[in-house]
Amino acid sequence: MVDPTTAGASAALPETLVDDLAALVGRAAVTDGDSHRALHAEDLSFHPAVLPDVVVFPACTADVSAVLAYASARGIPVTPFGAGSSLDVPVHGGISLDLTRMDAVLAIRPGEMTATVQAGVTRLALERRLGELGLFFPVDPGADATLGGMAATNAAGTMTVRHGKMRPHVLALEAVMADGSVIRTGTRAAKSSAGYDLTGLLVGSEGTLAVITELTLRVRGVAEAAATLRASFADTDAACAVVLDIVGVGLAVDRLELLDGWKVTALNRFGATSLPEEPLLLIEVSGSDASVLADLADVRAIVDEHGGRAVAEERDPTRRAELWRARHDLFFAEKAMAPGREEVSTDVCVPLEGLAGALVRTRAAIDRLGLLGGVSAHAGDGNIHAALLVDPGDLDEMRRLHALVEELADDAIALGGTCSGEHGIGLGKREALGREHAELLPLMRAIKRVWDPAGVLNPGKVGS
Amino acid sequence: MVDPTTAGASAALPETLVDDLAALVGRAAVTDGDSHRALHAEDLSFHPAVLPDVVVFPACTADVSAVLAYASARGIPVTPFGAGSSLDVPVHGGISLDLTRMDAVLAIRPGEMTATVQAGVTRLALERRLGELGLFFPVDPGADATLGGMAATNAAGTMTVRHGKMRPHVLALEAVMADGSVIRTGTRAAKSSAGYDLTGLLVGSEGTLAVITELTLRVRGVAEAAATLRASFADTDAACAVVLDIVGVGLAVDRLELLDGWKVTALNRFGATSLPEEPLLLIEVSGSDASVLADLADVRAIVDEHGGRAVAEERDPTRRAELWRARHDLFFAEKAMAPGREEVSTDVCVPLEGLAGALVRTRAAIDRLGLLGGVSAHAGDGNIHAALLVDPGDLDEMRRLHALVEELADDAIALGGTCSGEHGIGLGKREALGREHAELLPLMRAIKRVWDPAGVLNPGKVGS
Repeated sequence: MVDPTTAGASAALPETLVDDLAALVGRAAVTDGDSHRALHAEDLSFHPAVLPDVVVFPACTADVSAVLAYASARGIPVTPFGAGSSLDVPVHGGISLDLTRMDAVLAIRPGEMTATVQAGVTRLALERRLGELGLFFPVDPGADATLGGMAATNAAGTMTVRHGKMRPHVLALEAVMADGSVIRTGTRAAKSSAGYDLTGLLVGSEGTLAVITELTLRVRGVAEAAATLRASFADTDAACAVVLDIVGVGLAVDRLELLDGWKVTALNRFGATSLPEEPLLLIEVSGSDASVLADLADVRAIVDEHGGRAVAEERDPTRRAELWRARHDLFFAEKAMAPGREEVSTDVCVPLEGLAGALVRTRAAIDRLGLLGGVSAHAGDGNIHAALLVDPGDLDEMRRLHALVEELADDAIALGGTCSGEHGIGLGKREALGREHAELLPLMRAIKRVWDPAGVLNPGKVGS
Repeated sequence: MVDPTTAGASAALPETLVDDLAALVGRAAVTDGDSHRALHAEDLSFHPAVLPDVVVFPACTADVSAVLAYASARGIPVTPFGAGSSLDVPVHGGISLDLTRMDAVLAIRPGEMTATVQAGVTRLALERRLGELGLFFPVDPGADATLGGMAATNAAGTMTVRHGKMRPHVLALEAVMADGSVIRTGTRAAKSSAGYDLTGLLVGSEGTLAVITELTLRVRGVAEAAATLRASFADTDAACAVVLDIVGVGLAVDRLELLDGWKVTALNRFGATSLPEEPLLLIEVSGSDASVLADLADVRAIVDEHGGRAVAEERDPTRRAELWRARHDLFFAEKAMAPGREEVSTDVCVPLEGLAGALVRTRAAIDRLGLLGGVSAHAGDGNIHAALLVDPGDLDEMRRLHALVEELADDAIALGGTCSGEHGIGLGKREALGREHAELLPLMRAIKRVWDPAGVLNPGKVGS
């Protein structure tokens, strides 16, 4: 819920808001129609929607600058909006700044493995352009998010175990400060020691410090070959022992995903398959033909050592895609377990030594609280998601869901981990952030005031 | 030179300074002896030394906290000091805080590939402990720096092309703020989206925001096999074409080092070798036996395509070390070209597409300015160092050296690169930082004020 005492800017909106904005960026780029406003109050979370008063579609950095200068001077909240695919960053009132029309791929430089894009370019749009050149961008959060949104939330996903999150892939940013001034952080050079890392500070700041308008990204070459291995295990400990061994011997796997038995049951019902309904790992390696064969043999040896069963190995691209379809179908398979209910995902990240225990306690907590759902993990990172199927209208169930979120966050913090591995703080994790990093909150608030003294950027979130 | 108007704290020192500090941390941990003070005014740069008034050797985080609280309240400058191996971070007056007695390796966790150390642990001390477990830490700046110092300067080196600089290897920090309060940033989890990235902000802040006292680092497993290839090229363009091809096909080389003809001449004279006195590349790959053979063949094909000559390939560890000895002997070989002169290193980083041009212009500028020296590069990163042999007493020569540093910085900035790839800003690059990121300086200063309102931490550097 939005707490009005922390919601930052709260000045009354000018009656001429729409006309004023239209004068700045053109009538066609401003709308206060109900359908647009409703669309920009939704994301993939279930936080109560707060409608923006107006939606603006800037065409260029100068438009963003003009809107922010206007809003800062009047204390009007501005929430940047991309594809609306994030889970924990719902909008506030005021201006929703939709960056999806700033969708130009400005440069791809295969010789130095960099690309420069406007913030509204989506991951798949970039992927198509890169693919023509044998390149790809190795951060895949699942959704077809905008790259600006992915930077703002420091997105991650299945390939993070190999390549890392967004932050190490962002070399340089153009961003607009709350007062409308345009800054450029970082450079196209592969590394820099030129002062404080403002690029890294903006990445993951969830739209609270500045609005990202342009990004220079590291890209990578598509590997010659890849292989996927799927295996089932008698229990969580055995599956996690495989994860620790793979990480512990330094095997550079591209993906290392774990599903619990409940999720496998959901997949079996959805796809008419007959996988063992117990913990399952999906593991991918890539490289040269020779290295893939060597790595696959190493993975297989570890899997066998820990009693892996129903093992499938595929190197053919089509059959590999078939193995991964299980992972991609998961959302729909889970929804089909309880039609009409909404799916909510939790997100914590724990040190690998605590992974097995945290998974077992997550399962136990879901059952104890009488909730319906399953558990998965980007296991190589120790990043655990529980998927819960809930009825948002059932207040008692929502109270139990909230209790689960807080309990899992506390368990992760107690293990030396974090309340958010990749989804961010948004509204839902503000209390947990306070428990995890109590002594850092004053610093975060002070940094927020440096960038946004009027408190107009995505108020009520990190730094407020 | 220290500009007194920007040197931050400038209050007169209390006459009881040494006794006050001794009361806080014990008499044995405080000295104002001339030899200690002189030692703590030296690093590997040649900036005019400013003696600290007193040197303190804290034994624990509580000591650091007590000293900083005392200094903040009185406006006394405090400069953290590690191994003194950095190039651009000389000390100021006031208190030199020598962290080398905080040298405990607190934990190594092979299962999750992390280690926790106090800030004064040196790279080689950690390396010995990790080596017993088949692990290593992949940031090697050459010197046996402390890990706290390496984090403070965001150190890099020859292996950065494969593994990145310090920042992605630092998962969590304990640090003491200027007012003496102790904070913990990050967690042991592999990834986090819990608020602003204060860990990343502290890394590379050159001791100006807080004093790092403890680090949790990612470590890696030692590869099964490795191979080194050395090749010479007719000109800089041919050598750089190899670099671009290796990066452009996504070959994950561990090291990709370039030396110019002048440096090869120095090596030949020093080691009585007869390498072609033209651009030389040293390339290393590692992995499984199979992947090393495959990668080496790919590297060799690229080298041959661009006319590589006098090619040597080695997989035996002893003979590989022999090839790398050229690189390790470089400092001494260069000094031997002009006995009695001091060696100074420049440091810029350029986008790879501009590497060949920047190298050619660097060589031309050295000759035009009548300076003596050679050029090398961590070529895979586009990170160029010119090594100049100068007589610090020759004011005209020092003026020409300064002109070279500024010219190379401007050339890098014009190419879309940076005035500092890895050495940092310190005193020597403050003007260049202003040209590279003029609009960011007010932000950096404001962030500095958030962390260190009294301006006591390493004053006169970044953020001042």
